[in-house]
Amino acid sequence: MYDLIVIGTGPGGYEAIMTALRLKLNIAVIEKNKLGGNCLNRACIPTKYYRAGSHFIDKLKKAEKYGVDLETKNISFKNAKLNKDQAIGFLRKSLSQLLKSKKTPVYKGIGKITGKNQVEITKEDGSKEMIEGRYILIATGSVPTSVGGITPDGEYVITTEDFMERLEEIPETLCVIGGGVAGCEIGYIASTYGSKVTIIEIKDRLLPIPSISLEVSRNLKRVMNKKGIDVRLNTYVKEYSVENSKVVLTLSDRSEITADKVLLSVGRKPNTSDIDQIGIEKDERGFIKVNDYLQTNFDNIFACGDVVNSPMLAHVASYEARVAIKNMFMEKKEKRDYSVLPWAIFTAFEIAHVGLTEDEAKEKGIQTVTGYYPYTYNEKAVDELESEGFVRLVFDKDSRKILGATVVGIEASEIIHVMAFALKKEMTANEIHDFIYFHPSLSEIFLSATYDVAVGKLF
Amino acid sequence: MYDLIVIGTGPGGYEAIMTALRLKLNIAVIEKNKLGGNCLNRACIPTKYYRAGSHFIDKLKKAEKYGVDLETKNISFKNAKLNKDQAIGFLRKSLSQLLKSKKTPVYKGIGKITGKNQVEITKEDGSKEMIEGRYILIATGSVPTSVGGITPDGEYVITTEDFMERLEEIPETLCVIGGGVAGCEIGYIASTYGSKVTIIEIKDRLLPIPSISLEVSRNLKRVMNKKGIDVRLNTYVKEYSVENSKVVLTLSDRSEITADKVLLSVGRKPNTSDIDQIGIEKDERGFIKVNDYLQTNFDNIFACGDVVNSPMLAHVASYEARVAIKNMFMEKKEKRDYSVLPWAIFTAFEIAHVGLTEDEAKEKGIQTVTGYYPYTYNEKAVDELESEGFVRLVFDKDSRKILGATVVGIEASEIIHVMAFALKKEMTANEIHDFIYFHPSLSEIFLSATYDVAVGKLF
Repeated sequence: MYDLIVIGTGPGGYEAIMTALRLKLNIAVIEKNKLGGNCLNRACIPTKYYRAGSHFIDKLKKAEKYGVDLETKNISFKNAKLNKDQAIGFLRKSLSQLLKSKKTPVYKGIGKITGKNQVEITKEDGSKEMIEGRYILIATGSVPTSVGGITPDGEYVITTEDFMERLEEIPETLCVIGGGVAGCEIGYIASTYGSKVTIIEIKDRLLPIPSISLEVSRNLKRVMNKKGIDVRLNTYVKEYSVENSKVVLTLSDRSEITADKVLLSVGRKPNTSDIDQIGIEKDERGFIKVNDYLQTNFDNIFACGDVVNSPMLAHVASYEARVAIKNMFMEKKEKRDYSVLPWAIFTAFEIAHVGLTEDEAKEKGIQTVTGYYPYTYNEKAVDELESEGFVRLVFDKDSRKILGATVVGIEASEIIHVMAFALKKEMTANEIHDFIYFHPSLSEIFLSATYDVAVGKLF
Repeated sequence: MYDLIVIGTGPGGYEAIMTALRLKLNIAVIEKNKLGGNCLNRACIPTKYYRAGSHFIDKLKKAEKYGVDLETKNISFKNAKLNKDQAIGFLRKSLSQLLKSKKTPVYKGIGKITGKNQVEITKEDGSKEMIEGRYILIATGSVPTSVGGITPDGEYVITTEDFMERLEEIPETLCVIGGGVAGCEIGYIASTYGSKVTIIEIKDRLLPIPSISLEVSRNLKRVMNKKGIDVRLNTYVKEYSVENSKVVLTLSDRSEITADKVLLSVGRKPNTSDIDQIGIEKDERGFIKVNDYLQTNFDNIFACGDVVNSPMLAHVASYEARVAIKNMFMEKKEKRDYSVLPWAIFTAFEIAHVGLTEDEAKEKGIQTVTGYYPYTYNEKAVDELESEGFVRLVFDKDSRKILGATVVGIEASEIIHVMAFALKKEMTANEIHDFIYFHPSLSEIFLSATYDVAVGKLF
């Protein structure tokens, strides 16, 4: 009997494996598709590869600022894909080699929990095998959802996974349904690599997420428009059909759009429909019910990541995996805690956030004061030709402790961690202001943004 | 009488002005040259501008990885300089406009303290003016030193300041004397913009600084060599002369080098030779003697930055300025404290550090354990095509509290602040490991690098 069976090798399963191997546990791994799961093969990592490429392509337009005279002869999504596949292949191979060197069995197939300690694996050839484990971790992730009768067919109507894993050529015209995170990220990438992009969003703004302020949404729309992306808000698809190898969509405002491909990015649902036959409890949306320790209704079966009802983010999955493994094998039990959870979005600009927004704090009845500073006057941002952006910090009015931070601009997804640490340690505006930051750095913008609260206003 | 007279507007003076204006103080400013001092006009900011350009030029070689076929037709240092001047001009103008809007007088000239509350300004036209202040802050910075009879002439033998402020064309051949921070930064820039560069270093390695490990120095030499930079260690200049518009140098190993220009980058000395006539105490090297509150032997005269004997870094100057202003005008006095001082170097790769190295900890008799992780397996680094680098973390063996961190690689100068905050808050390896980092980010490399200490070794 194995100490632990891990079902799925996305960010949750991967982190569970890493932790378990370091604890010298005897584990088995089940993966139905490629090692690394969605995150590595068809979500976070390819998205950020293409996004890095897009940012590089955008930066080429500023070459003369550095005295460089260059000519862009061709931009080939196909070549970018080949190199993307190679980069991801390297990362996947590293994991595979590690598992081999640790003699960890990797079962290729679909795992189904058939007993408290038993998982049945259905392999690609239809054969079955049964393995047993003291503990089981369900980390099977999620699958894309569809909406309004629009069905992905892999050819005309594609999912984000199709775009990231399989798409060979960039379509001349692309219609993105859903102006959320994935829609805005992929819309930007496709546009930069040459597509004429339309984004259709049913709500009244891009990135309709409580933590994203209206100001940021509006600014994003402006920049997307400037890039030639057609953004249709308060709009949805009424009907669509494929005609002469093109998708014809009729929108709620009765306008018609023709596109070579439609990208459906309207959300994801937990991949739990056929996970067990022993009665593991799920909610009405299919999320596995877990307690604070990530334990299901079977005390030796845990779940983490997109299969449980917590933010659907790769780093939440890996955090939960670490917590779950600790709660299985270590003396001290740990409750999951999402109070300090930094996240970021990579679209026409980078957006990162941690903690509460001003509005969220007000809703909780907390009086706030805020600090603000634009990238415009940050010397490093000027040197990097990336002086669009800003930082907004939210503090408790009485204690001056930090409650939340938003960063919009270059490297937002990195420097947000400085404020995440400050939030974790309940630092005050003065503590953040008094810190010695390297000069010139983007991070010292937190010193600038705390001036108002820690010292006094300039005007 | 002004509340405060600030002499010098480099990072120390600038920060003093910002703090004083927010405290609604009535101040006067004296600047003998351009607003912003060395840092803005001829050190940090132009260096990072050219360095950003150099990194951009290096990155162009990887264009095909993103599917981009491009041709670099020309690289013009002259054009880069014009745009650099514009960027810096914008920042200088912002400061100038702020001072104007606050009706803060800016005296152009050299300030000399002629009484406890009195500063005499000698203007460019030779005329003199006397102003009085309750407090005085000396922030006059430093000037380049020379060595072994090599005298900068602005034409053949230039200083780092000449390079950053005035150099119009990149010399065909450049000999850099001094393989310290400035030498390695400028050597890399000059080479990328087309110079054939030789670096002469008297010690046995590049960056001969205690906090830089031999491993990093060696790696830098390898990368510099790969770029075609000739690095001569254990070598110094015996004699030199200018012949036929070229500098001919004879080195200690009797070899001879001919260069169009020689860059002297062997250090700096405090700019205090003519600062006062009232007996402000200085040490034998010219540093102004200050107490823990940055007070000189006159209780209303303070000093900060390169004129005092602390690390000669822009952000140390601005930190000291904030401390000095607090100690002048606020109830609660604050001692200067450099225990958490992140710094970074931008050469062929980025190097950042905070706290103690393993060796420094051992010298203090502290038993250590360390964590390490290479950029190679960090997914964001792979996506950015920047997978060379590593993180090393040093922990106290008993308490597992972090003692220091070194980061080598892309964005090292930003993510080092995450560990600087951890050091400030005396966080343990487990606390750093248990944190939720955004995925994919470079910052999550701290999670990876704490695995060994917080959970267990993989092998």
